[in-house]
Amino acid sequence: MEQFQLTEDLINNITGLISSNNTSDLKNLVKDIHYADMADIINSLNELDGIYLIKLFDSEKTSEILTELDENVRERILKSLSVKEIAGEIKELDSDDAVDILNELPDKRKNEVISEIKDDNLAGDLIELLSYEEDTAGGLMAKELVKANENWTVSKCLKEIKKQGENVTRVHSIYVVDGNEKLIGRLSLKDLITANSNRLIKNIYIPKVDSVDVNEKGDEIAKIMSKYDLEAIPVIDENKQLLGRITIDDIVDFIKDEADEDYLIAAGVQGDVEADDSIFELTRARLPWLFLGLIGGLGSVFILEGFEEFMNDPSYKALFFFTPLIAAMAGNVGVQSSAIIVQGLANDAVKGSLINRLIKELGLSLINGSILGLLTVVFGILINQPINLSIVISFSMLCVICVAALIGTSVPIILHNRGIDPAIATGPFITTCNDIFGIFLFFYIAKIFLL
Amino acid sequence: MEQFQLTEDLINNITGLISSNNTSDLKNLVKDIHYADMADIINSLNELDGIYLIKLFDSEKTSEILTELDENVRERILKSLSVKEIAGEIKELDSDDAVDILNELPDKRKNEVISEIKDDNLAGDLIELLSYEEDTAGGLMAKELVKANENWTVSKCLKEIKKQGENVTRVHSIYVVDGNEKLIGRLSLKDLITANSNRLIKNIYIPKVDSVDVNEKGDEIAKIMSKYDLEAIPVIDENKQLLGRITIDDIVDFIKDEADEDYLIAAGVQGDVEADDSIFELTRARLPWLFLGLIGGLGSVFILEGFEEFMNDPSYKALFFFTPLIAAMAGNVGVQSSAIIVQGLANDAVKGSLINRLIKELGLSLINGSILGLLTVVFGILINQPINLSIVISFSMLCVICVAALIGTSVPIILHNRGIDPAIATGPFITTCNDIFGIFLFFYIAKIFLL
Repeated sequence: MEQFQLTEDLINNITGLISSNNTSDLKNLVKDIHYADMADIINSLNELDGIYLIKLFDSEKTSEILTELDENVRERILKSLSVKEIAGEIKELDSDDAVDILNELPDKRKNEVISEIKDDNLAGDLIELLSYEEDTAGGLMAKELVKANENWTVSKCLKEIKKQGENVTRVHSIYVVDGNEKLIGRLSLKDLITANSNRLIKNIYIPKVDSVDVNEKGDEIAKIMSKYDLEAIPVIDENKQLLGRITIDDIVDFIKDEADEDYLIAAGVQGDVEADDSIFELTRARLPWLFLGLIGGLGSVFILEGFEEFMNDPSYKALFFFTPLIAAMAGNVGVQSSAIIVQGLANDAVKGSLINRLIKELGLSLINGSILGLLTVVFGILINQPINLSIVISFSMLCVICVAALIGTSVPIILHNRGIDPAIATGPFITTCNDIFGIFLFFYIAKIFLL
Repeated sequence: MEQFQLTEDLINNITGLISSNNTSDLKNLVKDIHYADMADIINSLNELDGIYLIKLFDSEKTSEILTELDENVRERILKSLSVKEIAGEIKELDSDDAVDILNELPDKRKNEVISEIKDDNLAGDLIELLSYEEDTAGGLMAKELVKANENWTVSKCLKEIKKQGENVTRVHSIYVVDGNEKLIGRLSLKDLITANSNRLIKNIYIPKVDSVDVNEKGDEIAKIMSKYDLEAIPVIDENKQLLGRITIDDIVDFIKDEADEDYLIAAGVQGDVEADDSIFELTRARLPWLFLGLIGGLGSVFILEGFEEFMNDPSYKALFFFTPLIAAMAGNVGVQSSAIIVQGLANDAVKGSLINRLIKELGLSLINGSILGLLTVVFGILINQPINLSIVISFSMLCVICVAALIGTSVPIILHNRGIDPAIATGPFITTCNDIFGIFLFFYIAKIFLL
């Protein structure tokens, strides 16, 4: 009942037993450890020790551990296993986990592993699952499920689902299909047990069942399952034929991965990287957005050059000291606006027209901008800055804040309406646009009033 | 089987029937709509229509709809209900949902509702649940569960769990307790059904069961449940007494809420706001970080003033045109570094010492900084900038990038080690620090080489 703790002592103990080749003590030490914890242990061992350890287990436990390993550790371990061994692990797994592993193999190896699988049904299922895109219902579903034909009797059904149930880790629902494998409803276990054994399933099933199309996107499925509190949902094709089912544990992983990705994208890190990835992978994930920032920064060099005349005027050259402030305000306000909209779009919480939303943002920006502007005037008085300069700076900043908020709000909505993921709009993209635009606007307005 | 669509037609239809007070047609129209979809409908109606509609249902469906409404809509509807009516809804709900609603009532009303609940057991459960902190196991758990005493016989157990099961929406597990209500294991339904009816539970239960302490934090519970693919987990106190259970659907909601909150915090929006909240709420969520940005921006005014002498030199005044570039680079690099670390800390993926991590960040920054610096030199050549100035600008930028990465990496780790949520470190805080520090460093290095 104690939570497992990955201690240094345990790791030292394990590496000690590995180096002295003491397999019997080692097996004893790890035999009660959950496969997810075993994966954590192997993640923190070196490659050879990890392979030594994972080969101690039977293929059932090995396969479960494989699914929980870090991707780069799994890659190395898979390389050290033969095609036959991998096929052995694959057979032990649920089809959705099996396909996730197959997808990580090079194409040639993937095909070799599939041809090594003697069970034609399983091989066919895996080839089907491999054909769907990741992050769609097809890519997330497993083929294992419990289904009943509407023409079966209750007694035949009980026998059949007992057989089917052996391959299914958890039976959430019994799905009912017609003679053409079309999903038509579901069956309650209680109704099945209490019904007369000669009755037909078609007379006792519930003709209402949620389902998703095989091409449905993962985030849509996550929304449906969490909205209706479903623990599993069947997947159908365009002819309503039952293809598989998705369980909530896969959706939990999906939601977490998506949230992680959105978080990193908003911070200007693209792709699925982790703190422990190689310098090369991290550079590739980070350089593109920094490059965009460079373009923006060099663009503002030109803009500032265009307002060089302020520098020759002793009373106005202070404007240049305010460029970091203006860039920061434009960037921060834009990121705030876009983050709220991106989040709202993801949660279907953005209602009403674009115009109304922009009016609201404008109101909000006027409040925030006025407060910040007032503080800037006070700051100007404290540092003995000419009052007219302070007022122009504050007014320009107010305008920059308003425009930044409008850009931050409208860009994600426009992208969303065109079917582009608005998440890319937050972070560096909006910041860079707003930096340039904000600085230009600031000096332009100052020029109107001061020169 | 069709997914529900919230159309304008449907809304118009409903508001039409409400204004003509045609309750029978209205009831007919909405009777098959799922409570989560009904909540969406009521969210988009005006207050009076929403109250009219929700009062059409029996308290079972009304209570389910209440739990799914937007918080501000629910608040208004609760205000329009009597204490007696609210108590009626509360009684229909699982205790965790009931407590969530009670928590939204003003203290006085909360107590009135609880005294209105005649069922002493339920009232006691609710008072207990109200005493736990939100986002801990106690705040997330429900009291409804199915448990068996180890001293029961199989036949008594079957009778008891049938009775208990009536109050539990989904039976995930049967928990086994000893005579002191201490959790000692769980029971498989299959073992229970196949065992001889005179056998004692203590002879057939499984003495291994995951559990969490009542004070465990929500994100820890989410990690445990998703790691071990659990659909429910029992909650115990320090004496191992069984207090309640948490189901995966609540954890899904928790994970989503946390991810939303972290996303907004990283964008400089604090608190739990949504796009459709009032201008006042949004201002309050956004102004604090903008204020921080203002402080930072005004701080850099002083720094830039300190390097005013560059402005008097025609060959070096161009340095001031590069301040937005430097601020952007410092900010972007810092946010990238901190986001990767914050994410890694949340996923327990940050291994190894701080020193090793800083060395890695330094290597990465040298690569990124050198590439960006080289491009900046090329840019300088293209705009006929003196080559020594270009080289100094690029070198200073490289230093700024390295320092920004080190700050972005170490601040979240230091906060984490002191038990402070590192999420607050990304976004505006790191950006503002790095802006100021980056600009200072840039001009300071330029001064060493140029003046």
